[in-house]
Amino acid sequence: MTAAGSTNAGGPAAGPAVFEHVITFRVRYSETDQMGTFYNSRALEWFECGRTEALRARGLPYAELEPRDVFLPVVEAHVRYLGRAQYDDLLQMTTSIAFIGRARVRCDERIVQADSGKNVAAGYTVHAFTDRNGRVIRPPAWFIEGWKKAKNAKQS
Amino acid sequence: MTAAGSTNAGGPAAGPAVFEHVITFRVRYSETDQMGTFYNSRALEWFECGRTEALRARGLPYAELEPRDVFLPVVEAHVRYLGRAQYDDLLQMTTSIAFIGRARVRCDERIVQADSGKNVAAGYTVHAFTDRNGRVIRPPAWFIEGWKKAKNAKQS
Amino acid sequence: MTAAGSTNAGGPAAGPAVFEHVITFRVRYSETDQMGTFYNSRALEWFECGRTEALRARGLPYAELEPRDVFLPVVEAHVRYLGRAQYDDLLQMTTSIAFIGRARVRCDERIVQADSGKNVAAGYTVHAFTDRNGRVIRPPAWFIEGWKKAKNAKQS
Amino acid sequence: MTAAGSTNAGGPAAGPAVFEHVITFRVRYSETDQMGTFYNSRALEWFECGRTEALRARGLPYAELEPRDVFLPVVEAHVRYLGRAQYDDLLQMTTSIAFIGRARVRCDERIVQADSGKNVAAGYTVHAFTDRNGRVIRPPAWFIEGWKKAKNAKQS
Repeated sequence: MTAAGSTNAGGPAAGPAVFEHVITFRVRYSETDQMGTFYNSRALEWFECGRTEALRARGLPYAELEPRDVFLPVVEAHVRYLGRAQYDDLLQMTTSIAFIGRARVRCDERIVQADSGKNVAAGYTVHAFTDRNGRVIRPPAWFIEGWKKAKNAKQS
Repeated sequence: MTAAGSTNAGGPAAGPAVFEHVITFRVRYSETDQMGTFYNSRALEWFECGRTEALRARGLPYAELEPRDVFLPVVEAHVRYLGRAQYDDLLQMTTSIAFIGRARVRCDERIVQADSGKNVAAGYTVHAFTDRNGRVIRPPAWFIEGWKKAKNAKQS
Repeated sequence: MTAAGSTNAGGPAAGPAVFEHVITFRVRYSETDQMGTFYNSRALEWFECGRTEALRARGLPYAELEPRDVFLPVVEAHVRYLGRAQYDDLLQMTTSIAFIGRARVRCDERIVQADSGKNVAAGYTVHAFTDRNGRVIRPPAWFIEGWKKAKNAKQS
Repeated sequence: MTAAGSTNAGGPAAGPAVFEHVITFRVRYSETDQMGTFYNSRALEWFECGRTEALRARGLPYAELEPRDVFLPVVEAHVRYLGRAQYDDLLQMTTSIAFIGRARVRCDERIVQADSGKNVAAGYTVHAFTDRNGRVIRPPAWFIEGWKKAKNAKQS
């Protein structure tokens, strides 16, 4: 998922993360390259898995958003590669999601080796809210409602 | 290609770009997603095509570097998604390559629709020099020599 | 593109190929894996590039089919891996397209090293005609018309 | 992983499968395409996940083979696409692994929707034994030993 529209959201995530979620996964052979570590673009694919599970855990599964005409395309992505990870390594990824302003969401991701805790990669993606035609929209009321519920669940 | 090692090279590319190279290519069906545009991680794969051709055009094909134990793994990547691109769209990508300090290379990429010139994506990757074991090295003399030659070719 | 529906079309392509088209392309770094050759699934992505260009060359660009509610999802795929291909190798792919029966298309693909002619991979994909909801359809009259024109162009 | 060498192993798997293993996984957004289902080549990437886990479950993790100079590159692959699967669908894949002759392994895969049991895809891959240079080898004694142990474990 990728979207039209520029963004200035390069700074640190504004405000406290609402969701923080951890998943583990293994590096697939298809994700390696001839350098023997994972190919750089895979980090963005893993980031997607992180936010998918973070949203599901908070009762807002992304698969239910698009049928309701709410899309969250990526408008900006950043990755720092901090350490190697090889085929079949078990990785742990922590996703933190927060609103930026009123109509953008930022997902911060950190990937470490599950066993040693060694850094593998860190970065973030910024997402706009759009309809199915790619037009920027305000997050609908039902989404904000669900988000607040998730936030309160977190705080309690 | 992805590498260990953190970087602070987030700012604008230091100094003038040595290489600037333009390629065109089409969006593959495999690069689209259900949103109907290209999936976000594909931009990083396209960036790789851009720097591969830019280096080849300047007499320093990357395929000849690794056998000589010079690797240029990505240590940082940034992408802004500026406009949609669909299956089979003809895209034009401009790659600019410059040294950052003594032992890093930065590639700036800009992708536009070949027909309309509309922005599709822009970003950069930062590369360290390492040996085959991922240890950071200084660029060898023969590489610097080739680079200077390319630079002079550009200026003339 | 992938579709519902089983197929028995495993035999040799029925009848003479209508289209035969050749393209060249280079192996991307993102397409390699830690074995140092291309990852096996990339062959299917390359096959797609082959049929895209073959259809375009014959005046039936696939990008114009889907907006007219004609989809050609893959219902079967077969690949034999015949030789290695490494990052940046220049490959040559020959695509032959033929109708199977009345409502299926079969694309045969052969990939060789462009320089040496050494075999890299060979295989085929079988495609059904469906509408946007995945329901099997008969190829529309305008498609058959275009196909015949292409066939005649080939024979003359 | 992909390998040199032709194969005639297109028939049904010879002899009873030694390993049979089941995993579940979700379709990633990066694995969809603009048709709204998964892109055809992803099936081969999923097949790899299936055999990775099947081998691990039987005490022969593939990640430990390559460091001992035993590679199992794919020499042939076949997929039939039997039904749609969308982003975030939970899929169940069954892997069966058997020897073909003395020096080849065949993995049969079947993917269904985890909830409904509806067919998604089925196919197989055939693997040769090679060393790191891609030369065909006989499976070493320690591998055969491990395999027999796994087989007996299965039978008891």
